[in-house]
Amino acid sequence: MLDYKLLQALAAVIENGGFERAGEILGLTQSAVSQRIKSLEVRLGQPVLVRHPELRATPAGNKLLNHFQQVQLLERDLRKTIPALAEDTTRLRIAVNADSLATWWASVVGDFCSREGVLLDLVIEDQDVGLKRMRDGDVAACLCSSSQPVAGGRCVALGEMIYMPLATPQYVHRFFPDGITPAAFATSPAIVFGPNDQLQHRFMAGCGYHGRFPYHLCPSSEGFVQLARAGMGYGMIPGIQARKWLEDGSLINLAPGHELSVPLYWHFWRHSGTLLQRLTTTLEGAIKPGNGILHG
Amino acid sequence: MLDYKLLQALAAVIENGGFERAGEILGLTQSAVSQRIKSLEVRLGQPVLVRHPELRATPAGNKLLNHFQQVQLLERDLRKTIPALAEDTTRLRIAVNADSLATWWASVVGDFCSREGVLLDLVIEDQDVGLKRMRDGDVAACLCSSSQPVAGGRCVALGEMIYMPLATPQYVHRFFPDGITPAAFATSPAIVFGPNDQLQHRFMAGCGYHGRFPYHLCPSSEGFVQLARAGMGYGMIPGIQARKWLEDGSLINLAPGHELSVPLYWHFWRHSGTLLQRLTTTLEGAIKPGNGILHG
Repeated sequence: MLDYKLLQALAAVIENGGFERAGEILGLTQSAVSQRIKSLEVRLGQPVLVRHPELRATPAGNKLLNHFQQVQLLERDLRKTIPALAEDTTRLRIAVNADSLATWWASVVGDFCSREGVLLDLVIEDQDVGLKRMRDGDVAACLCSSSQPVAGGRCVALGEMIYMPLATPQYVHRFFPDGITPAAFATSPAIVFGPNDQLQHRFMAGCGYHGRFPYHLCPSSEGFVQLARAGMGYGMIPGIQARKWLEDGSLINLAPGHELSVPLYWHFWRHSGTLLQRLTTTLEGAIKPGNGILHG
Repeated sequence: MLDYKLLQALAAVIENGGFERAGEILGLTQSAVSQRIKSLEVRLGQPVLVRHPELRATPAGNKLLNHFQQVQLLERDLRKTIPALAEDTTRLRIAVNADSLATWWASVVGDFCSREGVLLDLVIEDQDVGLKRMRDGDVAACLCSSSQPVAGGRCVALGEMIYMPLATPQYVHRFFPDGITPAAFATSPAIVFGPNDQLQHRFMAGCGYHGRFPYHLCPSSEGFVQLARAGMGYGMIPGIQARKWLEDGSLINLAPGHELSVPLYWHFWRHSGTLLQRLTTTLEGAIKPGNGILHG
């Protein structure tokens, strides 16, 4: 049997970003926390943490963390049936893509979390790379655009978000006076979320353009929209997020017919107890084709 | 004299997250890019990149990148005076705190960037840690809450953002029926941006509470507001960001008189040419006490 005090120390160090804060949370000295990590590493015969260049769990440490989180979820179910065991609420670590978090996520899961007393530890990941966190055992669930389940996990389709190439009318007038021509693409600043963001490239390829183009990098969902609204570039923005500005005309679609749909899949560990199952049921129940949750 | 082709290869690898994409951008094969990095490492006698656990520059590599960016900025000024030299636009790498990016940043710098043809490469950092990027030579400028200039950098005060403890009226009614009591703090879910976020602790300390409390972790400025709006917790939100919901009553201040002000400082490298100077002038000129840019 594993010594769960040691796993709890590891989880506290990672979650709080350091030994000192982990000690504060656990009511231990920093050196006691450090001793527990050391015991764990002796037991495993390998490190569970790397300190440089930043504090993070090793692959072995991540497997322990994932196991610890699953045990916590199972304990949570147990406490429901044995109320005398009840103590702290559970914090559920979930990877969510930035655009979902900036738009519909809270409105769908908010009541569930309040009702069930669940706390969330949200991690933002590009929809194309969030699954890696799940494979690494770093999160218990993941909302992303990949339909490929990880080993030990389940995957359900939630629906699709529609992305539109949006800019201010002034921007379109200045940079795309003749529509989406190769010359315009080659010289008009775009806005790209980050190096892993393939939406802009998919959009241009769909328009038949494969060349270079100038772009701003802005890894913030809301910042992205603000750059577009300030006329700094055009970018692929979820319709649900831009509805207000599409309605008042401050953002327009510069290439109607070239919208992109991005599917959303919910991944979760198969044997993590009933809480994740119920959260899954909540998500599936809330998001229906045509009810506007994902489309605005 | 340094071989700038090698530095350009290093910058492209870091900026694009890999050798293959760097090659695409530079019009080189992947192995040619790799060869350039190797030449640079031979010249330096030490690595400029680490590949694991993630691709990043070493401290020496970061110094080269910072130097390369400064040279690019100086070249940009030169091209203005010798138009025949004009070619690509400059991409300016700047660390910005998430809340500024989600609110006022684009409205203040948008015109400047459009007019000057500047592209931004924005990096989001908690206001308390953004400066580290600047010291590491990873960014040319940094917007954060520290007033301590880095060696070789200058620092100007821009103003203050006001943060208020906000939640829905239903949430306040349920969790703080008797106001901000210790018992309420100990049991009411808060929303915290991340492990480095000290605002929630400062707020509670200001109310005389130093104990434990349940919280959600949500490292997204817009996601943070959405969690509060969905009634999942209360959190410290910039007044400028919440204005609309404060006006329509969907969010309320649960502890009037306990707002926190967070100063914003603009840090930039001293000898990086006139572009950063003009961007600084733009920021200083736009943000005046009482004109509402930071306060809404």
